[in-house]
Amino acid sequence: MPLTMNREVFITCAITGSGATQDRSPHVPRSPKQIADSAIDAARAGAAIVHCHVRDPETGAPSRRLDLYRDVTERIRAAEVDVVLNLTAGMGGDMVFGPTEAPLPLKADATDMIGATARMAHIAECLPEICTLDCGTMNFAEADYVMTNTPGMLRAMGRMMTELGVKPEIEAFDTGHLWFAKQLVEEGTLAPQALVQLCMGVPWGAPNDLNTLMAMVNAIPPDWTWSAFSLGRDQMPYAAAAVLAGGNVRVGLEDNLFLDKGVLATNAQLVDRAVTVIEGMGARVIGPDAVRARLGLTKRAPVPS
Amino acid sequence: MPLTMNREVFITCAITGSGATQDRSPHVPRSPKQIADSAIDAARAGAAIVHCHVRDPETGAPSRRLDLYRDVTERIRAAEVDVVLNLTAGMGGDMVFGPTEAPLPLKADATDMIGATARMAHIAECLPEICTLDCGTMNFAEADYVMTNTPGMLRAMGRMMTELGVKPEIEAFDTGHLWFAKQLVEEGTLAPQALVQLCMGVPWGAPNDLNTLMAMVNAIPPDWTWSAFSLGRDQMPYAAAAVLAGGNVRVGLEDNLFLDKGVLATNAQLVDRAVTVIEGMGARVIGPDAVRARLGLTKRAPVPS
Amino acid sequence: MPLTMNREVFITCAITGSGATQDRSPHVPRSPKQIADSAIDAARAGAAIVHCHVRDPETGAPSRRLDLYRDVTERIRAAEVDVVLNLTAGMGGDMVFGPTEAPLPLKADATDMIGATARMAHIAECLPEICTLDCGTMNFAEADYVMTNTPGMLRAMGRMMTELGVKPEIEAFDTGHLWFAKQLVEEGTLAPQALVQLCMGVPWGAPNDLNTLMAMVNAIPPDWTWSAFSLGRDQMPYAAAAVLAGGNVRVGLEDNLFLDKGVLATNAQLVDRAVTVIEGMGARVIGPDAVRARLGLTKRAPVPS
Amino acid sequence: MPLTMNREVFITCAITGSGATQDRSPHVPRSPKQIADSAIDAARAGAAIVHCHVRDPETGAPSRRLDLYRDVTERIRAAEVDVVLNLTAGMGGDMVFGPTEAPLPLKADATDMIGATARMAHIAECLPEICTLDCGTMNFAEADYVMTNTPGMLRAMGRMMTELGVKPEIEAFDTGHLWFAKQLVEEGTLAPQALVQLCMGVPWGAPNDLNTLMAMVNAIPPDWTWSAFSLGRDQMPYAAAAVLAGGNVRVGLEDNLFLDKGVLATNAQLVDRAVTVIEGMGARVIGPDAVRARLGLTKRAPVPS
Repeated sequence: MPLTMNREVFITCAITGSGATQDRSPHVPRSPKQIADSAIDAARAGAAIVHCHVRDPETGAPSRRLDLYRDVTERIRAAEVDVVLNLTAGMGGDMVFGPTEAPLPLKADATDMIGATARMAHIAECLPEICTLDCGTMNFAEADYVMTNTPGMLRAMGRMMTELGVKPEIEAFDTGHLWFAKQLVEEGTLAPQALVQLCMGVPWGAPNDLNTLMAMVNAIPPDWTWSAFSLGRDQMPYAAAAVLAGGNVRVGLEDNLFLDKGVLATNAQLVDRAVTVIEGMGARVIGPDAVRARLGLTKRAPVPS
Repeated sequence: MPLTMNREVFITCAITGSGATQDRSPHVPRSPKQIADSAIDAARAGAAIVHCHVRDPETGAPSRRLDLYRDVTERIRAAEVDVVLNLTAGMGGDMVFGPTEAPLPLKADATDMIGATARMAHIAECLPEICTLDCGTMNFAEADYVMTNTPGMLRAMGRMMTELGVKPEIEAFDTGHLWFAKQLVEEGTLAPQALVQLCMGVPWGAPNDLNTLMAMVNAIPPDWTWSAFSLGRDQMPYAAAAVLAGGNVRVGLEDNLFLDKGVLATNAQLVDRAVTVIEGMGARVIGPDAVRARLGLTKRAPVPS
Repeated sequence: MPLTMNREVFITCAITGSGATQDRSPHVPRSPKQIADSAIDAARAGAAIVHCHVRDPETGAPSRRLDLYRDVTERIRAAEVDVVLNLTAGMGGDMVFGPTEAPLPLKADATDMIGATARMAHIAECLPEICTLDCGTMNFAEADYVMTNTPGMLRAMGRMMTELGVKPEIEAFDTGHLWFAKQLVEEGTLAPQALVQLCMGVPWGAPNDLNTLMAMVNAIPPDWTWSAFSLGRDQMPYAAAAVLAGGNVRVGLEDNLFLDKGVLATNAQLVDRAVTVIEGMGARVIGPDAVRARLGLTKRAPVPS
Repeated sequence: MPLTMNREVFITCAITGSGATQDRSPHVPRSPKQIADSAIDAARAGAAIVHCHVRDPETGAPSRRLDLYRDVTERIRAAEVDVVLNLTAGMGGDMVFGPTEAPLPLKADATDMIGATARMAHIAECLPEICTLDCGTMNFAEADYVMTNTPGMLRAMGRMMTELGVKPEIEAFDTGHLWFAKQLVEEGTLAPQALVQLCMGVPWGAPNDLNTLMAMVNAIPPDWTWSAFSLGRDQMPYAAAAVLAGGNVRVGLEDNLFLDKGVLATNAQLVDRAVTVIEGMGARVIGPDAVRARLGLTKRAPVPS
């Protein structure tokens, strides 16, 4: 079928990520309060979904601590502004190799490979409406680092998400990840009408190439919902590209630190810019309730204090 | 080669066209003064090129009168703001048929099929920097109308453009038009490093389908310069699509009357909106001198008064 | 959805066409008997469908004579070998212009523009299972010739096909023709689950470019059946391309005279070669009954003699 | 630029691979003599290049033993029939994880991760004209297995190939691998005018989807040479697809065991079938000298005995 533009677009704001960006911009939030505040500001600016990692409040280093996730979750749920919470489940699949003449043993201090239950602990605890599922294994930007999510691990984590009633946002960093995602749905590990995020231009996954994006878009089952993003100065172009090809938008400091060349951005500013581009093309930005209706999500109440 | 975004974009504003739009919006300019004024406003808003038809000053009906083209040309050349002038050479190829049980004779009052020299008379007279070459024959929106430009006619007109030193902007309304344009360059009728406009979503040419746009873009020789547009509410989306796929932008009242749903636009407002979208994606809008440098145009002096 | 190969392929053999090929190969059939015999041989070689034009038995010039169509039809229906009959409805839309300085009046001797009822007379008479509908207007190979099928004419002819119960094979020579075909189905002029033939590499329609083919294939509604072909030495490559992209195959002397470089072919030889390529790729060639089941055709009995 | 068919095609035969196929077909060669004989038969059938792994002569298990590679190399070089030798450099990058609740430690018996020099030892020793470079890391068919080639490892191995004067055949299993391959050329690790193999339909890399193949083909630099293949019953279809899209062909028992459904194939039979398909499309199959001329290879003399 011909590809038609999406005229009812939702924006996900990826608030902080787990990259070593915290010292490159003062706007990259570290503490749960900073992360929640930045997420709430992004929601006010128009983000229907906030995608959150947590960081060590002192160093800003990426963290998997449950109490930090819980704190972020409670703060966001308690906020006056409504937003769909999406927590990463991407941590704990990091392998870092030794030198090229002796790749094993793995570098113990940098490698973080844990079991499925441990990777899902904060999801089971916080029950966000959405959590991510990085749908494959690949070289990831650096010389010796492999983002590692084997088929076995993905099936185990996918089953847990299905059982918890947390909607997976499948992250497809290349065409093979999308293929495996479809396999997960076909075999029943994931529910139908899946949600997929096309992650473009992340070295060394699918490049920032419009032909490649289109091949991926053409391969998405028609009853799925999808979004796409790219990095750095390609963040806003891919917001436009996603809308044009029928998808939704992700922006935020996880993927890009700059509003304009040399101008550091806040999450709210990036969402605001995306709104400008989307509305400039004549599409409408929809809010969290419309997203819940489309994706079949159920809003979870804040923990009573 | 992978498709990469254009970060130095020029905007063409198509000022008035020859559609029956003059009664649908008060902003569609009719007289040479109105057309020139609207073009100059568009240039001020950021258009590097203005693409002009002329109309009967009273009725607004499309016209081929030389004096009107001359008047528009002189006014634009005399303006304080600089802009590249692009005049249509699309008039005079209109065939309208009789009823389906008797398609011939042609409807005499509606058919306007003239010879190559006559179609080029105002180009030879006004010597705009650019003129259009509608690179094929096709059903055009209505039941009985055929936009008619045979290969023989296109070769004759193309040769005249080459001899006059007026850069053709090849209008490709479908993939076959682009194919023939490449043939014109290969055989030497048109100069290399051609300029092509991909006209998307004009019934019944190439549809507003991103796969089709990409197929056309992939087929453009790497040393050509290109632009793309679509109609109505798809005007701004295709401004974004063109930039993303490596091309340039055309907006204006010829193709779309509305700024937002129910809000009639001026040419300057449409250019301004395009600038917002383009800059929102992080690209820069370039001016007439940069366009001249890229396309090898020579600015013509206004006629001394 | 991803594009998957067709493993159950039907072959259409286009027996003779209306090109000026009859003096370029002794195998191009002219008389009804020659055309029927060549069609029957093609069916024996594996063609499930034969697409026939008729010619003047003496000169070989293309013809619209009813008696010739009737003769071909009766001979094919009376044959021992079963095959689906597809008659052209493409004749009678030929416009040839005067010189480029005076395109009108049309060249009277070469122009053949008749009404819808006249274009359909042989279809109404012979009631083939399929007839073609050339779904647009375009420059066609030569300098001054336009293949002319206006929207009004296509609607009139399409309605007649629907009323007669003759399945239209929509010929799409470019992306805009396919767009209009979808419009005809949407508005109810043609029945759903349409059949479309993608005509590639016919100057000046869609070029022989795999990206363009894919854009068209991606734009075909999922419940349609399609086929594709190209000309000359690209006939067999496009047989393979069509199968790979999920479609069916057309070969035959209408589109290509040669089996190998310098070796003139018969229709049966071209079908046989296509079978080799299709089966070489592991697909199966299906026969007329399987085609009827897929397309919802009803075999018509031969006229009792 | 438009994609045009390759009319001068070379065939690579992938003789035995390292999959657990040796017990599934008696034709999968195990010993150096069997491998060389099968390669020579494939060359006689029309393969210009033979791509060889080695196996334990007794068990058929994949092996990295130098003496086996040397034996295969000498036998092929001493053969009467000429062929370009391509040895795998893909072994030694195998990681197999523990259960999903405890992915580390790696399974020691199944994991085989060695240093760059060790992975290249047989290449340095045998100096084949071509060796492979698997250009990324990915989940590979099974639940817990990761084919692991980090950027650091690929740079180290690539530099060795460049220094040895052995042409790398870059294996791209997904779009990101192709992106990294271009990076290797840009940064000077690999020589320009590279050779790339598009590996389609290998779970969980790029799927057997024609849109994805086209996106990859469109992204190959115009001065590179490329080939493509797929697995199992998609082997012959992708031979055709590669030719159609301008590339070359790989077939062989590494990728597919069957000639037809239920009929086990020899390498020579698969090459012969590919020749039929390629020639059926009107292309010519070229031999080892034409390949050497195109790729700038130098034939190495057999070791004098």
